[in-house]
Amino acid sequence: MRLTSAVLVVTCLAAVWAARPDAQAKNLTLTAVAGIKVGHHTLTERPTGCTAILVESGATAGVDVRGAAPASAETDLLKPVNLVQQIYAISLSGGSAFGLDSRSGIMRFLDEKNLGFKAFGSINVPIVPGASLFDLNVGNNPKIRPTADCGFRAAQAASSAVVAEGNVGAGAGATVGKSAGAGRAMKAGIGSAAIQMPDGLIVAALVAVNAAGDVVDPATGKVVAGVRTADGKSLADARVLLATGALRQPARLGENTTLGVVATNATLTKTQATKIAEMAHDGFARAIYPSHTTGDGDTIFAIATGSLQGNADVSRVGALAAQVVADAIVRAARQATGIPGYPAARDLR
Amino acid sequence: MRLTSAVLVVTCLAAVWAARPDAQAKNLTLTAVAGIKVGHHTLTERPTGCTAILVESGATAGVDVRGAAPASAETDLLKPVNLVQQIYAISLSGGSAFGLDSRSGIMRFLDEKNLGFKAFGSINVPIVPGASLFDLNVGNNPKIRPTADCGFRAAQAASSAVVAEGNVGAGAGATVGKSAGAGRAMKAGIGSAAIQMPDGLIVAALVAVNAAGDVVDPATGKVVAGVRTADGKSLADARVLLATGALRQPARLGENTTLGVVATNATLTKTQATKIAEMAHDGFARAIYPSHTTGDGDTIFAIATGSLQGNADVSRVGALAAQVVADAIVRAARQATGIPGYPAARDLR
Repeated sequence: MRLTSAVLVVTCLAAVWAARPDAQAKNLTLTAVAGIKVGHHTLTERPTGCTAILVESGATAGVDVRGAAPASAETDLLKPVNLVQQIYAISLSGGSAFGLDSRSGIMRFLDEKNLGFKAFGSINVPIVPGASLFDLNVGNNPKIRPTADCGFRAAQAASSAVVAEGNVGAGAGATVGKSAGAGRAMKAGIGSAAIQMPDGLIVAALVAVNAAGDVVDPATGKVVAGVRTADGKSLADARVLLATGALRQPARLGENTTLGVVATNATLTKTQATKIAEMAHDGFARAIYPSHTTGDGDTIFAIATGSLQGNADVSRVGALAAQVVADAIVRAARQATGIPGYPAARDLR
Repeated sequence: MRLTSAVLVVTCLAAVWAARPDAQAKNLTLTAVAGIKVGHHTLTERPTGCTAILVESGATAGVDVRGAAPASAETDLLKPVNLVQQIYAISLSGGSAFGLDSRSGIMRFLDEKNLGFKAFGSINVPIVPGASLFDLNVGNNPKIRPTADCGFRAAQAASSAVVAEGNVGAGAGATVGKSAGAGRAMKAGIGSAAIQMPDGLIVAALVAVNAAGDVVDPATGKVVAGVRTADGKSLADARVLLATGALRQPARLGENTTLGVVATNATLTKTQATKIAEMAHDGFARAIYPSHTTGDGDTIFAIATGSLQGNADVSRVGALAAQVVADAIVRAARQATGIPGYPAARDLR
């Protein structure tokens, strides 16, 4: 009887445990880095939205824009030679260049709290770099796009809880596998991953995956989500289509873009954060085929909160950043849910 | 009897075929692009050398230096805004910054043929960008390094024949898997790969693989050559060492560097060639873990001969470039031969 009860309790605990994703048992998302808050706002009128990444006490940051069709703001000030040393939030959104408006809402949210760069010692200017991805063709009305209100609501929703993944925020309208046109594409979304090292170093990533290319799991070389076969029922593999010459039309320009944020508790200079953003792009290369095309505005921001003291080994942080970025991309495909015209990885199983 | 003979002939042909590498049956190396000649010169005193890539009728080129510890020359003139539009050779060498001297020998070779940029209409200046990798710790005498004479001999040896791979030229002293120090590293070298598309487009790569990281086959996710276990007998997998925190010391600085050249018969502008060089770095990310570290001076040059007329699809050429670069890296590990202290992939089988 006692034994039976114990077994029952263990069984129930196991069932509860199994029902929780890893990320809930232990926070393995961007908010694993203390001081980072993430909030999504998802529009109901069309699959699009925005994601606010807040770091209200300020953090060192860098960026690397490596796609050829970016929509971005406040990236120039992140150049190591430039004045500002701390950012207070990053804005990611759908809506292409229009979606950059969501930055304004995040700025308003921070300004109401008097958080930001203090010009002349007291005039508050919240520093909010941002980037947007192209999802205007998803759903029926390209005039619907994230506005300043979207950014404000995302900032209001921001918390240090485990980050929601899938069809939310900046990833609500995100799709992948467009090498053969939108008709054979699939749904992706937001993914997040983190790694915690024995010495206390944490490196985490959040990615909104809206690539022209396929999502590939680098651990196996297998496609997770991407261009479908002509009948729409299985994966065609963009690598095969590319290498055999089966893709004849040029890639459509500017209709994609994968956006990433890498965060760490390491202490980094702006220059080092820039190198981390650069190395993190190796995660895009490993998990997206093809990556960094002329039709992708692929951009990664890197944030260092500096709560872990001491000299960081930049190569180590950068290598881990590339790894969590690749992990987040694979999760973005696996956690997404299909919408009309765009099945998700789970729908093809 | 007739049948037996036929079977015998087929069997013999199959044996001959199997004995030839693919690359000999059909040129699947950098010289698959008409107009490109490659020559190696390998020193006998120490494992080091240089590789001359000649394009004597001139070609459009671009470069992307994406490692943090480069040794390079004439890369500024490759910026799209700058004057010179055509290069005549590329010099790759061992010997770290000293090895850049090999450029001078290639320049002399070209100057004797009056090939180069014509200043004031007639003063010949051969344009030879170059980059070097760090191999001074391999062998017993770091004072031995490639000189101008090495470059001249490599240029003299250059031909349009299938490119020799393994421990030759700039790859003679190349090693990989140094995340846990030189004592657990392995030998790599020169690899080359090419793809020919049904429409006549050819994209080819040559890579001298001297990475801090491991070489991974992206088709399977498996390590080909890299950090060995403490007993030296098998592969430890740098990804595992990194993610578990088993690597405690910071990466050694500036003692690595992977160098690549991508060539295509497509017609490209300097700006487009630069984008191809950028996208080609995705091949480094996919086949080297970690890649682009602070201790790697990873550099890729892109050359477009323009013999294939028409507007090139830059994303397509760039995606194929990333693929042949990754293929060339895996070949560089598989074609290498062990030297004292550095076994090769074939030695661990």
